[in-house]
Amino acid sequence: MNDRSTAPVTVIGLGLMGQALAGAFLKAGHPTTVWNRTAAKADKLVAEGARLAPTAGEALRASPLTIICVTDYEVVRELLSEGDGEGGLAGTTVINLTSGTSAQAREAAQWAGRREARYLDGAIMAVPPVIGTPEAVILHSGPRADFEAHEGTLGALGTLTYLGEDLGLASLYDAAGLVMMWSVLNAWLQGTAMVKTAGVDAATFAPFAQQLATEVAGWLPGYAGQVDKGSFPAEVSALETDVRAMAHLVEESEAVGVNAEWPRLIKAIADRAIAAGHGKEQYPVLIEEFSTSQEGD
Amino acid sequence: MNDRSTAPVTVIGLGLMGQALAGAFLKAGHPTTVWNRTAAKADKLVAEGARLAPTAGEALRASPLTIICVTDYEVVRELLSEGDGEGGLAGTTVINLTSGTSAQAREAAQWAGRREARYLDGAIMAVPPVIGTPEAVILHSGPRADFEAHEGTLGALGTLTYLGEDLGLASLYDAAGLVMMWSVLNAWLQGTAMVKTAGVDAATFAPFAQQLATEVAGWLPGYAGQVDKGSFPAEVSALETDVRAMAHLVEESEAVGVNAEWPRLIKAIADRAIAAGHGKEQYPVLIEEFSTSQEGD
Ligand SMILES: NC(=O)c1ccc[n+]([C@@H]2O[C@H](COP(=O)([O-])OP(=O)(O)OC[C@H]3O[C@@H](n4cnc5c(N)ncnc54)[C@H](OP(=O)(O)O)[C@@H]3O)[C@@H](O)[C@H]2O)c1
Ligand SMILES: NC(=O)c1ccc[n+]([C@@H]2O[C@H](COP(=O)([O-])OP(=O)(O)OC[C@H]3O[C@@H](n4cnc5c(N)ncnc54)[C@H](OP(=O)(O)O)[C@@H]3O)[C@@H](O)[C@H]2O)c1
Repeated sequence: MNDRSTAPVTVIGLGLMGQALAGAFLKAGHPTTVWNRTAAKADKLVAEGARLAPTAGEALRASPLTIICVTDYEVVRELLSEGDGEGGLAGTTVINLTSGTSAQAREAAQWAGRREARYLDGAIMAVPPVIGTPEAVILHSGPRADFEAHEGTLGALGTLTYLGEDLGLASLYDAAGLVMMWSVLNAWLQGTAMVKTAGVDAATFAPFAQQLATEVAGWLPGYAGQVDKGSFPAEVSALETDVRAMAHLVEESEAVGVNAEWPRLIKAIADRAIAAGHGKEQYPVLIEEFSTSQEGD
Repeated sequence: MNDRSTAPVTVIGLGLMGQALAGAFLKAGHPTTVWNRTAAKADKLVAEGARLAPTAGEALRASPLTIICVTDYEVVRELLSEGDGEGGLAGTTVINLTSGTSAQAREAAQWAGRREARYLDGAIMAVPPVIGTPEAVILHSGPRADFEAHEGTLGALGTLTYLGEDLGLASLYDAAGLVMMWSVLNAWLQGTAMVKTAGVDAATFAPFAQQLATEVAGWLPGYAGQVDKGSFPAEVSALETDVRAMAHLVEESEAVGVNAEWPRLIKAIADRAIAAGHGKEQYPVLIEEFSTSQEGD
């Protein structure tokens, strides 16, 4: 394996994120080739030692490893097509850090495979300013050998997580992570809106919300055991007890005049599980509701 | 102040929770009087040293402090009415640990006040088996002096939190805590359902979900500052960027065939904030959406 910091790397796409990625490679000492549709976005990186390739095709051929991070998968395909001809993408490894769905990732892998490129799909769970620090979590999925071959180079970007061979995993975990992020934030906002009606400020309430989220997060590994076994004994409390408290929550939200949509959806999903006969089981039995597409889906 | 363990206390209501409460007082050495509609539920406690009062009225008069924990506030009022006459509730402190809404708590306090009882409202954020351990968090609201007068006795039940004078606070925090609990669980279930479509089991995914929930919970105190200032500069990312990723999340959920209701509500709430012109601001600007009752509310 190459000495990490001397392995050449190409970055295609110098938006907010691409600039941060290329900057982190340069900082770690990698000979870095860049390309962007709007060439001016390379100026700062070139001043820091990057080489600006004249075309996306030449950028792809400049290094054994290319990171692409652009707006969407359509742009990815358009730009990778520039590698066609002149030996094409044979021998190149492309790591696509553009956000998309698992289906897009699997399609892109097939498309790249037909061009003899090695392909990994990734997802960046971080904002540009933290790229290059351990705080930047970057998910990868695809052939393990290809990930391991470039792990040393990729390490310059942040904390790497390899999820498995299925090309769709990075997108799926990314989406799952985002749903957790927005759910914690929405729950906090709902609670904040409620206590504000009694004159409590957000700063007073936040540590309470933080502590609860952290505590409940600690239950997940245990609850996961119920999901994997498909058996949901009410060890701590039964779903029908939860649903009574959900009714209080909806009532409270309505009574104090805040938005009750979020509480109502919480209750509606649980109500369906009760209607399906799961009232005496424990909360994770709702996996069946979450796994089943609803009317209108 | 009385020596903690010699202060007499009454517990009215010996359901699952009331039995746990009375048991914890007995274990801490408090002379404990109990009453329950179905007298047989007192048997075990009486064997442990509790005194069974023949009526709720006598139970109320047996101790300077009465804890009541029954199904709902209607039952509370009915049972406390039995204290009417013979000096009524004058000089008695009632702590109501029955679940209800903030409005019910404030009404109950007024009702008790007219009977010259001192009244505190509480909420138990724990299941019966942990009562009497530090894990049992019990919220209190109402006159601070009354809380402090009985803090020593109440300490036998678990970890006490005093929230403030507003009688509705215990119910509001309780509801806010529950919304956080169900939101973390639902987000985890949504994510679990998604990664299961790629063959990942719940146990593999759970630590990822746990870590994210914990991390995002850590942002809340900082985000609370934006809410209190009413100013939401996009320091980390703009809402319009979130909404693009929400669209991916909805699309991904639909594409893999899981329930997309939860992602769709996340997006719908944010979409409204964008329509209201907040696209360039940061996520906590959604406090306006959560604070405003929606059509149908
Ligand atoms: N920024 C974040 O916080 C963040 C976090 C996690 C993931 N991501 C993901 O990272 C990816 C890039 O995000 P970003 O923040 O860097 O976005 P951005 O600043 O908008 O940059 C978009 C990039 O795509 C290029 N591009 C768009 N259309 C093109 C076309 N038709 N032909 C050639 N190039 C084209 C742009 O080139 P021009 O410069 O010429 O327009 C630019 O390099 C997205 O998938 C995003 O979801 C971003
Ligand atoms: N259990 C939990 O995990 C938990 C956690 C947090 C909060 N809480 C709250 O604690 C409260 C009690 O819960 P629980 O679990 O103890 O409920 P439970 O086991 O159903 O007990 C209900 C109690 O209310 C009494 N009651 C109901 N209707 C009555 C009436 N008309 N007249 C006289 N007494 C009446 C019952 O007496 P009988 O025995 O004669 O029926 C029993 O003592 C609820 O507000 C609940 O939300 C419970």
